[in-house]
Amino acid sequence: EETLDSVMKSLKELLSYHDGCPSTVTKTLSCTSIKASGRLASCPPGMAVTGCACGYGCGSWDIQNGNTCHCQCSVMDWATARCCQLA
Amino acid sequence: EETLDSVMKSLKELLSYHDGCPSTVTKTLSCTSIKASGRLASCPPGMAVTGCACGYGCGSWDIQNGNTCHCQCSVMDWATARCCQLA
Amino acid sequence: EETLDSVMKSLKELLSYHDGCPSTVTKTLSCTSIKASGRLASCPPGMAVTGCACGYGCGSWDIQNGNTCHCQCSVMDWATARCCQLA
Repeated sequence: EETLDSVMKSLKELLSYHDGCPSTVTKTLSCTSIKASGRLASCPPGMAVTGCACGYGCGSWDIQNGNTCHCQCSVMDWATARCCQLA
Repeated sequence: EETLDSVMKSLKELLSYHDGCPSTVTKTLSCTSIKASGRLASCPPGMAVTGCACGYGCGSWDIQNGNTCHCQCSVMDWATARCCQLA
Repeated sequence: EETLDSVMKSLKELLSYHDGCPSTVTKTLSCTSIKASGRLASCPPGMAVTGCACGYGCGSWDIQNGNTCHCQCSVMDWATARCCQLA
């Protein structure tokens, strides 16, 4: 049988979330670069590829397997994946 | 006139959100590529352009209308928009 | 000493957040481009660099100081940073 105090106890627990789900309100977009030699560079699990850079001034790339930058130009020495996540 | 039970009923309903707004806590950044022939490639509504790739090794691009990659090099055969959203 | 009414008052305040932390549920990914002459372009504080574009068809870039696109090709006239945030 509920008492005012039991109700108040639950309310206080819930009120600790009062400032709007702190775990999400403060989330921001956070990005990092992963560079690798050759023509492939992959983002770690949990991060999304938002763009790629390539050696030899190459701007032709595609994304393989959802997380890997593939630099397409014939001669290639490095590839960089720009990786972002909510953190 | 409130009774303890009516208060408790609302509290229980609210407590179902206790684990911190499930609809947002699990949101992650999700990206996809949209490729098109020619020099323009657009992200679908609701997605943001985070980067572009272009044919002919071209790394000069700009964003038109807020959602369209425009590859600037004189000769161009394809354009890809990297499109991301919270999902 | 708690009364039913005091409990109910707090509950109603909390219930105003009932629809799941409106401040976060509606957050989306929002991006903009910052263009600068030369080989460096920076995102404003609070925004993350998701990709870069460069003049002269150059696709070789890196990120300096966490927020600045650096276009690497030998001759360079402009750089653009693609900047995104949760908004």
